[in-house]
Amino acid sequence: MNSKDSMTISEQVIAAIRTVVGSSPAVLHEPTFNGNEWRYVKECLDSTFVSSVGEFVNRFETDLADFTGSTYVIAVVNGTAALHIALMLAGVKSGDEVLIPPLSFVATANAVVYCGANPHFVDCHESTLGIDPVKLRDYLSTQTELRSGYCVNKSTGRIIRAMVPVHTFGHPVDLEGLISIARDYKLVMIEDAAESIGSYYDNQHTGTFSKLGILSFNGNKTVTTGGGGAILTGDVAVAKHARHITTTAKMPHAWEYRHDDIGYNYRLPNLNAALGCAQLEQLPTILAAKRELFRRYEQAFTQVSNIKLISEPEKCHSNYWLQTILMDQDVLGQRNRLLEATNNAGYMTRPAWSMLHESQPFKNCPKMDLSCACSLAARLVNIPSSPSLIPSEL
Amino acid sequence: MNSKDSMTISEQVIAAIRTVVGSSPAVLHEPTFNGNEWRYVKECLDSTFVSSVGEFVNRFETDLADFTGSTYVIAVVNGTAALHIALMLAGVKSGDEVLIPPLSFVATANAVVYCGANPHFVDCHESTLGIDPVKLRDYLSTQTELRSGYCVNKSTGRIIRAMVPVHTFGHPVDLEGLISIARDYKLVMIEDAAESIGSYYDNQHTGTFSKLGILSFNGNKTVTTGGGGAILTGDVAVAKHARHITTTAKMPHAWEYRHDDIGYNYRLPNLNAALGCAQLEQLPTILAAKRELFRRYEQAFTQVSNIKLISEPEKCHSNYWLQTILMDQDVLGQRNRLLEATNNAGYMTRPAWSMLHESQPFKNCPKMDLSCACSLAARLVNIPSSPSLIPSEL
Repeated sequence: MNSKDSMTISEQVIAAIRTVVGSSPAVLHEPTFNGNEWRYVKECLDSTFVSSVGEFVNRFETDLADFTGSTYVIAVVNGTAALHIALMLAGVKSGDEVLIPPLSFVATANAVVYCGANPHFVDCHESTLGIDPVKLRDYLSTQTELRSGYCVNKSTGRIIRAMVPVHTFGHPVDLEGLISIARDYKLVMIEDAAESIGSYYDNQHTGTFSKLGILSFNGNKTVTTGGGGAILTGDVAVAKHARHITTTAKMPHAWEYRHDDIGYNYRLPNLNAALGCAQLEQLPTILAAKRELFRRYEQAFTQVSNIKLISEPEKCHSNYWLQTILMDQDVLGQRNRLLEATNNAGYMTRPAWSMLHESQPFKNCPKMDLSCACSLAARLVNIPSSPSLIPSEL
Repeated sequence: MNSKDSMTISEQVIAAIRTVVGSSPAVLHEPTFNGNEWRYVKECLDSTFVSSVGEFVNRFETDLADFTGSTYVIAVVNGTAALHIALMLAGVKSGDEVLIPPLSFVATANAVVYCGANPHFVDCHESTLGIDPVKLRDYLSTQTELRSGYCVNKSTGRIIRAMVPVHTFGHPVDLEGLISIARDYKLVMIEDAAESIGSYYDNQHTGTFSKLGILSFNGNKTVTTGGGGAILTGDVAVAKHARHITTTAKMPHAWEYRHDDIGYNYRLPNLNAALGCAQLEQLPTILAAKRELFRRYEQAFTQVSNIKLISEPEKCHSNYWLQTILMDQDVLGQRNRLLEATNNAGYMTRPAWSMLHESQPFKNCPKMDLSCACSLAARLVNIPSSPSLIPSEL
């Protein structure tokens, strides 16, 4: 019996993490400000244009368009706001249903509710962590019917208007399969790419495959603006509408304040955009560090039995936002001990979000069989993922 | 005939503004960053805590509580978000009506609609620019009746749940009169103090007279966080609830993400709070400069016929956020020429917001006779109001 065999799962995981990140404590994800962050933020303060008007907001949008390949980008206060407006512009109305995975941050479901609509939970696939197109097509074929060109849930009688695939932890979902379902079932697809800046499916940036996609720049994301988000679209009319209602639906005029619609105060402040401009310059370096971190974890975790490190799906290039291990079913009883032990050792780890369909506000929402998502949620653990864990000289 | 008599109103106003602010162009309101703004923002960047968690957010809330005398302060992304949550916590529900003035920024009405409720427009008083309690009491006595303890609009059959007085341009509304009406008609009062940080009614800070009040720190306000706002309350349960639902209703836990309610992503980022902490240190200096600017305008405008400079109402101490002139009815025909001429001369001026009850999204909302508000809206012009117009050595 060698020493590894005598170690508990927790001890093996701690040893693997230590091999990669060293013995200092490590949080789950912290931002790195190694570029022009100070300079741009100071420039912004010096200009006094810190609020909803300013050069950095425009530049941040242009830089994001360049990076993602999205024709239009509208910067907003956060990813939740982006998703709220994207759903509205996708035509989601009060009483509709919207297909979403149960394995996501709560914003995905909340944004549906802000539109007066109902989340409808659909299952995930183990290889992408996102919506499973094969299971979904099978489910929709029996659960729904087309009435007057709309996909109607036969159990509730409500229109299923849209689908929001989430690129979980930065790993692209099977977009090809989902696009085909969206077309066949008359669903608008809104890509929740909050976690996947720098992730590509078939060499195209996530968030750009459908009419609307969204990004997030919260403090725990790959790049941050403090709080921030963006709407991506290739449709000029949608872009114009998005910009209009995220800036209180004010009609352009030198001094008149007149509004032609219910609008939102969702514009990203210039101060936050200044930080974002500097962060986007650093993004290639950050992505390279995160990929190198994955490579090192991959090596370290080959030594750990009953644990698999999640890697990018086929045809995909992931940003590896949050590095994730997946426990085998037969060691699941040790998960809470693993969480306790790693956190006590100074390595921040956490399970996936609690399943949304089990959460108080959504427990009566419609859902299909969610066995894969439930299994994933029980077995996933995120481990320290900051780009700063890779020395910057690399 | 002296030279003044031969000058047009526009020429007289331009001359009066020039006397006060000099011959350089002047915008309506720009922030001043003469204190620790850069130091704190840099500290925030250096800490990497730029997002929803951080010391500056807590400190900003404490400093605001100290300044306003509010027991609890919850910092949020902007004044609109603050008002949305304040209305929700006041119990405003779908189908309710909420009394608001038609002379306000559109956020006041939009926030009511976000709750699924209907703005109900009530008239203003010329001396405060805000809701007129005498006219309002008279209107409610015939238009409403108490049914099961609720104030019901007899025309629509809907419950009038709340009233949102706005301290327009920083001038406190007649709070004593409105508090008495709120009590008699079972209305919750939510003070929209977005424009009135540093304004006092009877020596008490605006926004602290009822269960809920809100502040704004948009870039054009007396002090700014880029984008930002705050909810004020003296009620511990309301404060706790406000903090919970503005932070996605996440239940406290080291690693679990579990949510017990539909929540919002409304927390002010630490980066913006860092700017706010420095701005609050400067607030007394800024307020003194704005008061001195008023004093100088007051002197200059005594020379201008048919124009009155708006001054603080009785029993009130205003922050003089936006300096405002009021044109006599008989020179109103010259208002557009005045706006053109002053803006062309490099002095930014603008009329009040377009009346909300005439705006497309709200034109079918219930309203009382709004003759005073309409008259004010037609006659008001804001003139350059930045604290930087007063040299800082004063």
